[in-house]
Amino acid sequence: MAGATVKPTPLLKDELDIVIPTIRNLDFLEMWRPFFEPYHLIIVQDGDPSKIIEVPEGFDYELYNRNDINRILGPKASCISFKDSACRCFGYMVSKKKYIYTIDDDCFVAKDPSGKDINALEQHIKNLLCPSTPHFFNTLYDPYREGADFVRGYPFSLREGVPTAVSHGLWLNIPDYDAPTQLVKPRERNTRYVDAVLTIPKGTIFPMCGMNLAFDRDLIGPAMYFGLMGDGQPIGRYDDMWAGWCTKVICDHLGLGVKTGLPYIWHSKASNPFVNLKKEYKGIFWQEEIIPFFQSVNLSKECTTVQHCYIELAKQVKDKLSQVDPYFTKLADAMVTWIEAWDELNPSGDDSAKPVNGTAK
Amino acid sequence: MAGATVKPTPLLKDELDIVIPTIRNLDFLEMWRPFFEPYHLIIVQDGDPSKIIEVPEGFDYELYNRNDINRILGPKASCISFKDSACRCFGYMVSKKKYIYTIDDDCFVAKDPSGKDINALEQHIKNLLCPSTPHFFNTLYDPYREGADFVRGYPFSLREGVPTAVSHGLWLNIPDYDAPTQLVKPRERNTRYVDAVLTIPKGTIFPMCGMNLAFDRDLIGPAMYFGLMGDGQPIGRYDDMWAGWCTKVICDHLGLGVKTGLPYIWHSKASNPFVNLKKEYKGIFWQEEIIPFFQSVNLSKECTTVQHCYIELAKQVKDKLSQVDPYFTKLADAMVTWIEAWDELNPSGDDSAKPVNGTAK
Repeated sequence: MAGATVKPTPLLKDELDIVIPTIRNLDFLEMWRPFFEPYHLIIVQDGDPSKIIEVPEGFDYELYNRNDINRILGPKASCISFKDSACRCFGYMVSKKKYIYTIDDDCFVAKDPSGKDINALEQHIKNLLCPSTPHFFNTLYDPYREGADFVRGYPFSLREGVPTAVSHGLWLNIPDYDAPTQLVKPRERNTRYVDAVLTIPKGTIFPMCGMNLAFDRDLIGPAMYFGLMGDGQPIGRYDDMWAGWCTKVICDHLGLGVKTGLPYIWHSKASNPFVNLKKEYKGIFWQEEIIPFFQSVNLSKECTTVQHCYIELAKQVKDKLSQVDPYFTKLADAMVTWIEAWDELNPSGDDSAKPVNGTAK
Repeated sequence: MAGATVKPTPLLKDELDIVIPTIRNLDFLEMWRPFFEPYHLIIVQDGDPSKIIEVPEGFDYELYNRNDINRILGPKASCISFKDSACRCFGYMVSKKKYIYTIDDDCFVAKDPSGKDINALEQHIKNLLCPSTPHFFNTLYDPYREGADFVRGYPFSLREGVPTAVSHGLWLNIPDYDAPTQLVKPRERNTRYVDAVLTIPKGTIFPMCGMNLAFDRDLIGPAMYFGLMGDGQPIGRYDDMWAGWCTKVICDHLGLGVKTGLPYIWHSKASNPFVNLKKEYKGIFWQEEIIPFFQSVNLSKECTTVQHCYIELAKQVKDKLSQVDPYFTKLADAMVTWIEAWDELNPSGDDSAKPVNGTAK
């Protein structure tokens, strides 16, 4: 019965990897220690491979730098961004776990309105383990939450919901603004704790931020490609957006749910708006055409797996977005390469067949 | 600039009517006195016209009972429900104001988490006066609110938003559950104050509750028909749902927005679940077909006014839903009668041409 019993949230210790694009300060891991120590970490170093990332004692981790990525993927490494946190998606590919939590290293533990530390991971697990309701809107937010339910007028046939593939968490303190908004409102801080989780309705795409994000790798992993950003690319800061648009369209097609809202993390510092503007400005133009594309894209009924959907999407990206900029031809090719690499590292039926080796602890 | 300046919310004293379906206890008006006294009230008595509703001193009101409705509408009075709070929509029709707030008489002033009385009307006015964003989802909720904005990845071309036609408020204490859920969870109370307002995305319909609802009568009034319920009808408690489905479809078609969330009122007592079940049970079946109908309905480009949209919708209801039950033939006819009556009382170009007389104070 929806919301009727309160079960403890399982840890999913052996079923979840934490993927971190890089770690520039050790306070980050120290602060998260009580929450992250039970889990395996996958660190994907986003810049110079000769730099050493010191991981404090007690954490179970593997670390991949560019040399590792090149060695493991060979020529297919071209689909993984360099010098950009978009490289984190390599971690999704090498993980063998059912769930992924990814977080940026400038995100710290936030406090709820009562002053208690928020266990972000626990809330993400809650979100992922209970269904989503993309087919009809519930005005009291997540109907499966304790103390809530479906409101009057909610069709009974839809109350089982659908499996949740993505849990998109939010940020207190520094909000996730684009460069123009950062420039105009340098002092704005997000202080509003909105105590809600909600399903993003079917047919609605959304700006997915990669700062504080969890997903079911088995359900949607191959769609979580963070694109071509950073070194040698004309654009940055659209890695998570790209993944979000593709993921939402595929979730809608496959009948999977995307939740947003709780948990909050504390986003400690705003990135430089001038640097951001340089990375973003093409995206600011392009998104005006990309978003209508994703809002109207249609996947054929034959696409029954995430991989099939993604390859089909890559085709349509090439057909429809290449006229926006030649970059999209390259990106569409990289999308295909990404799926090939994914399937190579994750042969179906035997996930453990091809072990990969990073600098394991 | 979104959220940049905090302006005081105007009272809209001469532009807003409060419509109350009936008043069974005087505590209701006393409790709301500080908030409602500046406004004009339209009370639509839902039962026996010989019963006298005593309105305390100090309120500016007009009261309509069944005899008044019959006198004013003549044979068209058939479209107004009898012995059901659905009759409230008569008040929308006779109002001459731009905005309507409607509230049930078992809804009291709620408190925010700091213990302060919530001025529900003020929040509704805020919601109605600032735009909605139905074309793309903003993860930080209402981007126009103080301390919030559009997040990274939100298309700049969509940041002006669209006019808000509906503000759907929520309820603390007794949640708006259907009879089966009431029966199963008799003790559930809504204690969660979610500090958010959000736009319901285009293409997504929702269960609109009439307990605590405001709308822009000029923009959407003729769609706010509460259907045929109560005396002589096979169904009850679907009046607001019907209005919500029709309204949302028409808002989507005309490019208008619907917001939900704040403000909360305190819903004091649950109605009898056994009585509710009797009223609802046909609706529980029917909504399984009605909702897919509304999710897929298409209005032609020629429908450029709310009235045209509504007449077109009435046609489609007759065509598609009459096979569910003959009731929908009657309802479709009543929808047309409602628009005829609306237009008679609200001739275009001169709203004040046809004054109507209730028992004015």
